[in-house]
Amino acid sequence: MTLSASEVHHLKRASAVDGVLPAIVQRWSPRSFADREVSHADLKIVFEAARWAASSYNEQPWRFLVGDRNSLTYKKIFDSLISFNQSWAVHAPILILGTAKTKFSHNEAANRVALYDLGAASSYLTLQAHALGLSTHQMAGFDDAAARQAFEIPDAYVLGAVIALGYQGEPDALTNQQMLAQEVAPRERKPLKHFVFSAWDVPADLH
Amino acid sequence: MTLSASEVHHLKRASAVDGVLPAIVQRWSPRSFADREVSHADLKIVFEAARWAASSYNEQPWRFLVGDRNSLTYKKIFDSLISFNQSWAVHAPILILGTAKTKFSHNEAANRVALYDLGAASSYLTLQAHALGLSTHQMAGFDDAAARQAFEIPDAYVLGAVIALGYQGEPDALTNQQMLAQEVAPRERKPLKHFVFSAWDVPADLH
Repeated sequence: MTLSASEVHHLKRASAVDGVLPAIVQRWSPRSFADREVSHADLKIVFEAARWAASSYNEQPWRFLVGDRNSLTYKKIFDSLISFNQSWAVHAPILILGTAKTKFSHNEAANRVALYDLGAASSYLTLQAHALGLSTHQMAGFDDAAARQAFEIPDAYVLGAVIALGYQGEPDALTNQQMLAQEVAPRERKPLKHFVFSAWDVPADLH
Repeated sequence: MTLSASEVHHLKRASAVDGVLPAIVQRWSPRSFADREVSHADLKIVFEAARWAASSYNEQPWRFLVGDRNSLTYKKIFDSLISFNQSWAVHAPILILGTAKTKFSHNEAANRVALYDLGAASSYLTLQAHALGLSTHQMAGFDDAAARQAFEIPDAYVLGAVIALGYQGEPDALTNQQMLAQEVAPRERKPLKHFVFSAWDVPADLH
């Protein structure tokens, strides 16, 4: 028997040390989305969270394209996804495409951390969504050229991820067995000692 | 008369819409750090928060070099900073250098979102630090080649930011007038309409 949405929500809670922010401990990335719309008021709060991320020179290089289901924006983002992602993201009520300007506005010099800052803003967005009872799933699996062409995005912008946003659905709505298995598995991460060092000491199997 | 540390802390509170997570509303990036050590227990929680960030294929490409003041690691990171950053970061008790592996471990293919995922993990780290009463300031202003050489970081890794971490200090400990002015100024961000769109509609002055 498959676990229910609320059972999975509990299971996905990170086995983190005490003191970690609840939204960080509890956030995870479902592929099953419920047939339930997201209010524009909530959507505004989610982008407001992204807005207050830090960025180099306070450039705020992030630009987000966002579409409700049935909008042309949604269709363009959806059409750029690889088929594996289309198969589940089709149920997400909101799709977002995150992009970042790779030149500083104050002097046109290259901003080598534009993608880093976009990742930061997007991760605030995901935490905020969780805090509102929403779920997100970020995807790198989309056709960069297709998305760029569909929206006529200038070369000076880099594309980051497509973010599916909505309310978590029942796991057994997923018909793909690999997806279902991942949906009901505990979250796993490397131990701290594999990525926090005082000298470059990456374990050989992680090189 | 300069504002005190606690007065500035209040001033930096974002003018965000209601409902945004407190840590996101309140986090900001001081340059004045107090002469107060950070416990290893708190440092562990901060990295634990980074650990639970999302990443493409759950690769967790982030690797962090971290040094306490007086350590060789700290010295190496500090020496890589541009002089403007050295002038204030010298008072931070902890320096962290964030890096990310740019190839997927499961198939050695290029991971084009490695820097994006590092930005996400680092931004969780900054929020968590805030929640523990700590402050962070991320810097892109460091010598990539120097840092890479000092730690013998392989080419397959990209460097992100150096993060100064510690307790906020009194603003008037900053002797540089530009730094002091920024330290006591309200945080500012672009309005949502400048970076959230349904079609590519970036205002001309932001191109």
